[in-house]
Amino acid sequence: MGGSSSPCASCKLLRRRCTKDCIFAPYFPPNELHKFAIVHKVFGASNISKMLQELPIQQRADAVNSLVYEANARMRDPVYGCVGAISFLQNQISQLEMQIAIAQAEILCIQMQDDNNNNYNLSEIQIGNNDNNLQHEYISLLQIINNTN
Amino acid sequence: MGGSSSPCASCKLLRRRCTKDCIFAPYFPPNELHKFAIVHKVFGASNISKMLQELPIQQRADAVNSLVYEANARMRDPVYGCVGAISFLQNQISQLEMQIAIAQAEILCIQMQDDNNNNYNLSEIQIGNNDNNLQHEYISLLQIINNTN
Repeated sequence: MGGSSSPCASCKLLRRRCTKDCIFAPYFPPNELHKFAIVHKVFGASNISKMLQELPIQQRADAVNSLVYEANARMRDPVYGCVGAISFLQNQISQLEMQIAIAQAEILCIQMQDDNNNNYNLSEIQIGNNDNNLQHEYISLLQIINNTN
Repeated sequence: MGGSSSPCASCKLLRRRCTKDCIFAPYFPPNELHKFAIVHKVFGASNISKMLQELPIQQRADAVNSLVYEANARMRDPVYGCVGAISFLQNQISQLEMQIAIAQAEILCIQMQDDNNNNYNLSEIQIGNNDNNLQHEYISLLQIINNTN
């Protein structure tokens, strides 16, 4: 019974006696028949058992979860399974990398425009300084005219 | 022989007679023993046969390729298999989305700085225009002085 009061989902489905050391019992409780049915359909109970036996106990729960994920993906997409998801994600990454390249080019472009504007502003400021001198000369001239009158 | 002179990789490995209508023969030629051995180890010949039978012929080659890919991933990473790759790609997408958000924030920030600079430049230009008027008045004053003298 794998430590439980009733046989695990695997032993229920395979119609066999669930022993205390059943390799499936910790990961396929009696109420998760469907979970085992899916991995059994895709990988086969014998293969899953072998795969789990080759792993240390503390990694088996993760392995079962990934096998269930893969099996579900194969049921949803019998042609591509998980590989369809990988292909989709790789395309998404290509698109995001393209967006980043565009954004970086945009930043570079704005920075170059800024550099040009700063050079323009510098000459503007220099004209401004010249005009300050002009202001002083204008005031001096006004004083001359006033004195003349 | 699946249309070939020697049994396909699957029939070779399973030590059975390769008939003309062998479902594996088109996808596992005699020289690709290792390819079949891997999918057999992970999915089992019986499951692969069932999966292929449920698919139209034109999709079977893609299905075999994805099964081989998945099986290879499971051999490389017995705990996570393809799901490890999916998880890795999802993390990569999160990082790229973060990079895009940062780049967009940077563009927004530069654009806001530009707007501020443009407002500053506008007042600078207005001063410039005033100084142009000043220049005209300066020349007029010079003419007055010359006339006076």
